[in-house]
Amino acid sequence: MEQEYLDQRLARESIDTIRLLSADAVEKARSGHPGTPMEAAPIAYLLFTRHLRHNPCNPNWPGRDRFILSCGHASMLLYSMLHLTGYDLSMDDLKHFRQLDSRTPGHPEFGHTPGVETTTGPLGQGFAVGVGMAMGARLLAARVHPELFDYRIYALCSDGDMMEGVAAESASLAGHLQLGNLIYLYLDNRITIEGQTDLAFSDETASRFLAYGWHVQHVEGENLKEIDTALGRAKQDSRPSLIIARTHIGIGAPHKQDTAEAHGSPLGSEELRLTKMHYGRDPDESFHVPEQVAGHLAAAKDRGRALEARWQEALHRALGDNNAGLAAWQQATEAGLPSEWQSALPRFSSEDGMLATRQASGTTLNALSEHFRLLLGGSADLAPSNNTALKKEGSFRPGMADRNIHFGVREHAMGAILNGLAHTPGLIPFGGTFLVFSDYMRPPIRLAAMMGLAPIYVFTHDSIGLGEDGPTHQPVEHLAALRAIPNLTVIRPCDANETAQAWRMAVDNRRGPTALILTRQKLPVLDRREHGSAEDLSCGGYILAREQGALDIMLIASGSEIHAALEARTLLQADGYGVRVVSMPCWELFDAQPKTYREEVLPAGGALRVAVEAGAGMGWERYVGTGGMVICMEGFGASAPAGDLMEKFGFTGKHIVARIKAAL
Amino acid sequence: MEQEYLDQRLARESIDTIRLLSADAVEKARSGHPGTPMEAAPIAYLLFTRHLRHNPCNPNWPGRDRFILSCGHASMLLYSMLHLTGYDLSMDDLKHFRQLDSRTPGHPEFGHTPGVETTTGPLGQGFAVGVGMAMGARLLAARVHPELFDYRIYALCSDGDMMEGVAAESASLAGHLQLGNLIYLYLDNRITIEGQTDLAFSDETASRFLAYGWHVQHVEGENLKEIDTALGRAKQDSRPSLIIARTHIGIGAPHKQDTAEAHGSPLGSEELRLTKMHYGRDPDESFHVPEQVAGHLAAAKDRGRALEARWQEALHRALGDNNAGLAAWQQATEAGLPSEWQSALPRFSSEDGMLATRQASGTTLNALSEHFRLLLGGSADLAPSNNTALKKEGSFRPGMADRNIHFGVREHAMGAILNGLAHTPGLIPFGGTFLVFSDYMRPPIRLAAMMGLAPIYVFTHDSIGLGEDGPTHQPVEHLAALRAIPNLTVIRPCDANETAQAWRMAVDNRRGPTALILTRQKLPVLDRREHGSAEDLSCGGYILAREQGALDIMLIASGSEIHAALEARTLLQADGYGVRVVSMPCWELFDAQPKTYREEVLPAGGALRVAVEAGAGMGWERYVGTGGMVICMEGFGASAPAGDLMEKFGFTGKHIVARIKAAL
Repeated sequence: MEQEYLDQRLARESIDTIRLLSADAVEKARSGHPGTPMEAAPIAYLLFTRHLRHNPCNPNWPGRDRFILSCGHASMLLYSMLHLTGYDLSMDDLKHFRQLDSRTPGHPEFGHTPGVETTTGPLGQGFAVGVGMAMGARLLAARVHPELFDYRIYALCSDGDMMEGVAAESASLAGHLQLGNLIYLYLDNRITIEGQTDLAFSDETASRFLAYGWHVQHVEGENLKEIDTALGRAKQDSRPSLIIARTHIGIGAPHKQDTAEAHGSPLGSEELRLTKMHYGRDPDESFHVPEQVAGHLAAAKDRGRALEARWQEALHRALGDNNAGLAAWQQATEAGLPSEWQSALPRFSSEDGMLATRQASGTTLNALSEHFRLLLGGSADLAPSNNTALKKEGSFRPGMADRNIHFGVREHAMGAILNGLAHTPGLIPFGGTFLVFSDYMRPPIRLAAMMGLAPIYVFTHDSIGLGEDGPTHQPVEHLAALRAIPNLTVIRPCDANETAQAWRMAVDNRRGPTALILTRQKLPVLDRREHGSAEDLSCGGYILAREQGALDIMLIASGSEIHAALEARTLLQADGYGVRVVSMPCWELFDAQPKTYREEVLPAGGALRVAVEAGAGMGWERYVGTGGMVICMEGFGASAPAGDLMEKFGFTGKHIVARIKAAL
Repeated sequence: MEQEYLDQRLARESIDTIRLLSADAVEKARSGHPGTPMEAAPIAYLLFTRHLRHNPCNPNWPGRDRFILSCGHASMLLYSMLHLTGYDLSMDDLKHFRQLDSRTPGHPEFGHTPGVETTTGPLGQGFAVGVGMAMGARLLAARVHPELFDYRIYALCSDGDMMEGVAAESASLAGHLQLGNLIYLYLDNRITIEGQTDLAFSDETASRFLAYGWHVQHVEGENLKEIDTALGRAKQDSRPSLIIARTHIGIGAPHKQDTAEAHGSPLGSEELRLTKMHYGRDPDESFHVPEQVAGHLAAAKDRGRALEARWQEALHRALGDNNAGLAAWQQATEAGLPSEWQSALPRFSSEDGMLATRQASGTTLNALSEHFRLLLGGSADLAPSNNTALKKEGSFRPGMADRNIHFGVREHAMGAILNGLAHTPGLIPFGGTFLVFSDYMRPPIRLAAMMGLAPIYVFTHDSIGLGEDGPTHQPVEHLAALRAIPNLTVIRPCDANETAQAWRMAVDNRRGPTALILTRQKLPVLDRREHGSAEDLSCGGYILAREQGALDIMLIASGSEIHAALEARTLLQADGYGVRVVSMPCWELFDAQPKTYREEVLPAGGALRVAVEAGAGMGWERYVGTGGMVICMEGFGASAPAGDLMEKFGFTGKHIVARIKAAL
């Protein structure tokens, strides 16, 4: 019976249909990647018909298995499968592949096409996001309900995933954590864009993954029985699984199979005709789905509905058991943030003495973690420095998922894993490292912003103020570089209370990622009886200290430089100038305010505008104009105690005053 | 004799001296990392006294072996070794560890301290830079002289190097290329900042490196004979070598050995006293170097002078053989760029039809490669798209170094390897990928800028103009993010001739990296009889088309948007407006011009200033002020044919005109 199923003609016809549908769409678009959908069709067929627990009628069923196309350029494979198995993606959608406003963009986009679990294309990202999804499932199983969240993560991977460092980092962590709910298939086609893979790559991939602690199998990419058996074994193994499938790019295309030409361009009309003939199809017919194939593949809908119905029943039973974790999860996923959670935020007093914003962040995070039982995260091996440890919680370890994640020295994987966790219903993930190492994780930050996922980044050691570690560790361009990313909210609080408010905004914003930019060095806690309220951080910028008398000078600053600006204000006021200090922790929030508010904070007129930030000045002209002044870092930092550096680079009250007086 | 040497008390005393000198300096600085210098002292001792071919009297001897401290936080180990073996680094320098303007910054900085081969600290970078250095040596051996450039690259690596993706990527490439001139020692101390390494890491490291094609050995970190033998075997093996040394962080510190506390803070005065007693030293004595030890270690100077003298003789003999490659190398390293090389630059005609700037770049690169025989590079598996292939040259393959490098799908490693190649005397390295993937390689770009190294980045597919691949592949924030890096020159030419000039500036600038930002889509070649000269690109910005009549509007643009700006100018002029178009391919070059020039190009006054660039608008306010207009991308792109996207996002002449008219 089993054997019969696999051998039957219908399976082969289905696979050929997937291949040709994908090649047709690429051909019609005159753009795209036909070769990989063709080689991977047998695997996709088996996954979507026999292994994935999915319900095409409800792509958001929380208990579903996840499928990731890590080789996102093979998007037509995924679109073909979604269409054929009954997701809300029509043949017309396929015919508009890669066209403006279609639901079938060049690479799969999360939130854009039903059934696309995560945005892929930049190589290695899908691989690593899947590791985060597997960790998310483990956390839900441990903290909410073991059976309801026993779903698996499948991914299709290509050579790029074997070569990219982010995949290596996350493979190492997945092996360490024994994520047996991870099943990846590697399309070993021996072809890259520049030619044969062995131009640049000769790893023994199986040995390497065994060294990471994975379960590894080899199959022939056209042998359904082998693939099916391997998938069955992978599900039984407690380690993450890699199935290495020897495949042939562009299989069946007489002149392009096994060549780089099959990768990134349409086959061409003549080659496509010949390919159709190779598969015994009418060369003049395009986008053809034989009726029997359509029915066979659409059966996924009934299977899916039944699977989900059983799961919903189980959920219903479990809710009846007064499972507090489950109730909290349901609240988080259905109702959003609980009301009144803000009351959990700590309040700091100016009598608390000096406090680094990273310390205030640690205090705030721990307070929030008691309120949000599905808030989890950690650091890329810098938890004691980033203050990211949840003190009352355990560690996420092999076989024991808990809320403190040890990402290891793997910033890039951390970024992608946070995306996988953010894809997991109910979770609020965060991750920390030094701000300078945000550079290691920009690709997943960008994808989070694009997908509208909301991980929270805890970036500490935010300027030359970190001191002795020197220029390799001192961020300069990083604030500007992060602010340039659309839909990323960057907040650099100036004291402990602004830090608590920054966390409030981060948790409240579930439509995009937030980066918290925090000091290593201690700072005063501002006395809010004398200054503007820290809660005004929600406006992005606000008047921290008003001018006495006429407004001559506006000092606009963020983070630790606020204190130098306040010092400068005192000195300048003593000389008779009217000086306003504007705290500007977040450009994105400020720019979103109504014009009237922005002009109230930064009134037009003749006052000299001076921006002060110990980072690259780029972009501050937005607020100071061509006539203003930007006091910033003009190059890289240096290694010395923080105070010496603030003197050297001019971020003290006295230096600011001197610069202003020279300009007046 | 051999055995005797290794066992002798002098070796042990030397090692203890290195340990305590390092711990003393950290203690005095009240900041730094004592644990790793202590554990690695035996290895450093053996390397610097018996294995490294180096000349402390001439740290720039081209034939020397290179030593990289990839775990840069252990900088005091390197400073101790440099001081003790006779480099120009005094005891007083050691006593000013991590102080302002000292020669002993927190992490080793290239160009700052004699004997520091590359800047390290951000983990994984040193590991990968060493791979580039080894490739550089192979290229020099193949193209200049085999014996003169048979030097080796040694590195000390820590857990971070085993976990970071950039190290994994470059290890894979090093194994593939069989770089037997690479000898790395991994300090397997089982401790990371968050605690035991096995919190996050359980790779079988030896198996993993065997899978990459490396030669792997295990040694005990205190056993000099074992280490010595392993180093000897590593030199004989044709594969890159990893020597895994089981070490003990903070060894000899009674309470802190083998704990994370020994990692990143001073031992503390009492613990340091106890450590000194453990080593049989006077606990009250600091920075103590026994006379015998001083003499023993300083013998490196005589050995080094003799080694270099033999090499210089060999060089002299080889030059006598009329070796053309060697003469060219000597010219490149001693005299700099040959005069008149600019004549090799191609000139493109407006009658050549449409040409993508990536195509013009390929043509220019190939023309230059005939002139510069030590220009080498490639792409991260996108050579056909980046137009980076040197058509008359062969590939860099195992056992056969040539000028076309296949980096594989490893952008991050490519960036670091380019730094290693740029450290190699005489070489001009370049590397290509899509602009969006510059995010994968920012850490090494930053280090190149900091070190003043001059690799050339060929970043193609520079905007939504790449079309169907969609938002995952369309850069938005990348221009801003690159422009924010100090000492990086970012050039986005608008046509073929500006592209040739951009290459001229890139080759000419040997004091920092240059990023060339190039289109996928075809663009007209501007008729320079009607427009400003492309050679004015050297000023960063110039008047491309002057206004007719009064100056009403200034359009400032770069790259492909220049053509939309010119179109807008035509339309606006027809309506009677005087419109100037300023081509602004490079902010860094423009900002470096005298004020008079900048004001000539962008005169003060009432004209409306409009910046047009299909990227994030951030920073353009520098040129348009608060009263101007920035026509830019406000979010991410989309998947569609390029023309449709330029319409949708408003980068056509008509859209620009409409925006301007609405504002006037």
